[in-house]
Amino acid sequence: MTRTHVTRREYDEWINEAVSLGLALRYPVTPSMVNDNAGIIFGDDQYDAFERGLWSSEPYEVMLIFQALNEPTVDGLPAAAADYAEYAGLCDKVMILHPGKFCPAHLHTRKTEAYEVVLGEMELFYKPEPHVVEGEELQFQSLPLGEPWPEGVALPAGRAEAYAPLTSFKRLLPGDPKFVMPRKHLHAFRCPPDSRTPLVVREISTYSHEPTESAAGDPVPLPGWAGLHDNTFMAEAADSGRLVTRIQ
Amino acid sequence: MTRTHVTRREYDEWINEAVSLGLALRYPVTPSMVNDNAGIIFGDDQYDAFERGLWSSEPYEVMLIFQALNEPTVDGLPAAAADYAEYAGLCDKVMILHPGKFCPAHLHTRKTEAYEVVLGEMELFYKPEPHVVEGEELQFQSLPLGEPWPEGVALPAGRAEAYAPLTSFKRLLPGDPKFVMPRKHLHAFRCPPDSRTPLVVREISTYSHEPTESAAGDPVPLPGWAGLHDNTFMAEAADSGRLVTRIQ
Amino acid sequence: MTRTHVTRREYDEWINEAVSLGLALRYPVTPSMVNDNAGIIFGDDQYDAFERGLWSSEPYEVMLIFQALNEPTVDGLPAAAADYAEYAGLCDKVMILHPGKFCPAHLHTRKTEAYEVVLGEMELFYKPEPHVVEGEELQFQSLPLGEPWPEGVALPAGRAEAYAPLTSFKRLLPGDPKFVMPRKHLHAFRCPPDSRTPLVVREISTYSHEPTESAAGDPVPLPGWAGLHDNTFMAEAADSGRLVTRIQ
Amino acid sequence: MTRTHVTRREYDEWINEAVSLGLALRYPVTPSMVNDNAGIIFGDDQYDAFERGLWSSEPYEVMLIFQALNEPTVDGLPAAAADYAEYAGLCDKVMILHPGKFCPAHLHTRKTEAYEVVLGEMELFYKPEPHVVEGEELQFQSLPLGEPWPEGVALPAGRAEAYAPLTSFKRLLPGDPKFVMPRKHLHAFRCPPDSRTPLVVREISTYSHEPTESAAGDPVPLPGWAGLHDNTFMAEAADSGRLVTRIQ
Repeated sequence: MTRTHVTRREYDEWINEAVSLGLALRYPVTPSMVNDNAGIIFGDDQYDAFERGLWSSEPYEVMLIFQALNEPTVDGLPAAAADYAEYAGLCDKVMILHPGKFCPAHLHTRKTEAYEVVLGEMELFYKPEPHVVEGEELQFQSLPLGEPWPEGVALPAGRAEAYAPLTSFKRLLPGDPKFVMPRKHLHAFRCPPDSRTPLVVREISTYSHEPTESAAGDPVPLPGWAGLHDNTFMAEAADSGRLVTRIQ
Repeated sequence: MTRTHVTRREYDEWINEAVSLGLALRYPVTPSMVNDNAGIIFGDDQYDAFERGLWSSEPYEVMLIFQALNEPTVDGLPAAAADYAEYAGLCDKVMILHPGKFCPAHLHTRKTEAYEVVLGEMELFYKPEPHVVEGEELQFQSLPLGEPWPEGVALPAGRAEAYAPLTSFKRLLPGDPKFVMPRKHLHAFRCPPDSRTPLVVREISTYSHEPTESAAGDPVPLPGWAGLHDNTFMAEAADSGRLVTRIQ
Repeated sequence: MTRTHVTRREYDEWINEAVSLGLALRYPVTPSMVNDNAGIIFGDDQYDAFERGLWSSEPYEVMLIFQALNEPTVDGLPAAAADYAEYAGLCDKVMILHPGKFCPAHLHTRKTEAYEVVLGEMELFYKPEPHVVEGEELQFQSLPLGEPWPEGVALPAGRAEAYAPLTSFKRLLPGDPKFVMPRKHLHAFRCPPDSRTPLVVREISTYSHEPTESAAGDPVPLPGWAGLHDNTFMAEAADSGRLVTRIQ
Repeated sequence: MTRTHVTRREYDEWINEAVSLGLALRYPVTPSMVNDNAGIIFGDDQYDAFERGLWSSEPYEVMLIFQALNEPTVDGLPAAAADYAEYAGLCDKVMILHPGKFCPAHLHTRKTEAYEVVLGEMELFYKPEPHVVEGEELQFQSLPLGEPWPEGVALPAGRAEAYAPLTSFKRLLPGDPKFVMPRKHLHAFRCPPDSRTPLVVREISTYSHEPTESAAGDPVPLPGWAGLHDNTFMAEAADSGRLVTRIQ
């Protein structure tokens, strides 16, 4: 490990180019969506991604999120539904990854997501079986099985183990049908290292429970939501990284 | 009333031009999303919209929806949440309205929506107060009050009464923040009659319960969802029109 | 022949949908570019294209042009260059063709063009050898030879002969390098009949000399340019059709 | 002056982000268009732009060009036109400038240009009167007069004098009519310093005569074109800078 932080200039250039790309693709990036948690570096060892820069095509867990909406959809709910409202809600974001970069292996206990590729190709890795307790969760559809991994996927150093259970692979392209990732399924994805552009993905999902530094102090719709963190990362180091980005 | 149906040629031209516009704007319109319920004519008296055609700028309740996703998000839900799942879910659609045309005054008991204008201007009319029973529904945020209506809005003949309770007005443009319409709020919108293009709006929402002809026979995730219709239109005639389009 | 004209409603719907598509693709279509020569029907027998409509996929010579620029580039030219200025200039247009429709076989004595596909696929047919008089014209590069025609290209009724000399074929896609069609080369193109969208092509070229009805009375930069018509169509009927569109 | 070059990493990041932005906006940037002359730094003293980076909003003469076409349009020309062919031809490029950055004051003796803003706002400065010798050049139209400069335009250090003759100002926006800059007119432009995105402009023009390092050795259509440089910069230092970029 040679890097302990990203510089302010590196961070701002990363964010500003991404804002431009998002706006060029008509994503409604408003100024309030741009903050010091938009760029995510998943753990101390991932800051090395900035040693040779985001265009080096090296495998690191580094990505960027502009979130246009995170709506609890609590208003107008029958009072008795309060206990389950944290599984619902509406979130809309755009995710931008440079070539070779990964969104790390993780799952959400509450959040179900759907992907739409806007630019580039999304290489999606997942575990088709859910992490559920027999008989305690509802089941309607099954996640399709996917294909075997392509040859030669370069994984982030020291994190290969976290990706091992994600045996299914699916390549998603602009214009493809939306792909649903139900809650309680392990998943990860990357931008192909030889891509000419960053990967740009729209994700709509149920509410995103993430106590990031930027969101600290925001009011919550129900008491139980305070401090809730719905991301479970396979690599322990990724967990802490998600919530704060060290910029100097 | 002079028209009792839309011709197959009129319908197909309407749909095909809209598919092209959607694809040009990068919305993922797949062939399976194109069917005889994509074009919606809200009631017998609205077929007259085709007498002078969709570019006449006359006020009619006629619109088009391509729905890229309608996901119940039931999988992985705690079993005890089943009774409230119909308030959750994820729907993603694009709505296309020609100049002067309206999405009629209605509300949803379960569905909360968020709008993003992709092309043109959205003139939104709504009632800021929800239709709720005191003390039985949760309340977190309030819908902002909006502005008074602009002068001279031409309403569809015979349906002015349905719009009367929607006293708030808001103009939405491309790049604006997403606008949330919580469940149980009356709303309607139109494309300005002098627009050079149709209005194109992305809507993400919770699950859309609509027993359209095209959806008949689709499996439902929970028994209670069968035949559920979550749209309540102020004009009775609009209700029936939503579910079937007469094409000859 | 059953049709002698296009109706005002048919024409306006054709144009308005195309304006919308052009704007969605960011082409700068201003109101002054929209007139009764934007839609082109190449000869009396081609009005039948409207019998079953532009989405029938039938082969007709019917297309639409929005021209954003036609600049003589005469200002600042050395006085002695006046005789050759009609070979230069700058024109920028977008051309929109519905599935199955053709831009007919023709050549320009003065105009050199370059194509950029914005939406859909362009099927280009051309004669690789120029129509020049040995020793009287400059020669620098050669037009590449192209491929043989694909199987089963449905040509417009009664006009097959005009396409016979265009033995080379090339398919152009969005993102491809610009393709140059030098002056004095026969060429034609179409939108594939099974396309889900119209073909949209940007063309930049030297000045476009076309005495259309809409351009009548426009000032010319040099006396010799008045009434100049630089299109030579292989089918005689196409020639007259280009300059006026019968709308009733 | 603290900087004598741009680093390879700085250059490649600049170019790669711009390629992505160009592709997102559908400009056909092919790999062969990306080289070490795409990024232009107009003179030794302008390398300081990289001291605080392209997003500092400081005024420097630094821009980027991806050129999709530079076609002489010599083929098929009457032999007697050879002497004047260098005033004609077809060039298509996209120009990308970061906030606060300028394309410096210059004119072309041969090239006439037209601008189309794709993203952001173009602040154009020009001299409405041409640099011509009375009676020796053709004249058809006049460049419109423009407005006075807005308040507080921050000019590049040491180069204010070069901009003094450019007394006319014009703001160009996406969707505006193409703006023609005839040959022999001084002009410059910038991206507003408070812009959220780089300025992206399409320029079509007659042939671009620029003996850049990357173009060295390319065949020319006529002997007199070899080594021709049609850019005259007001600041002497800008001239040399255009043709080679120092990357280490």
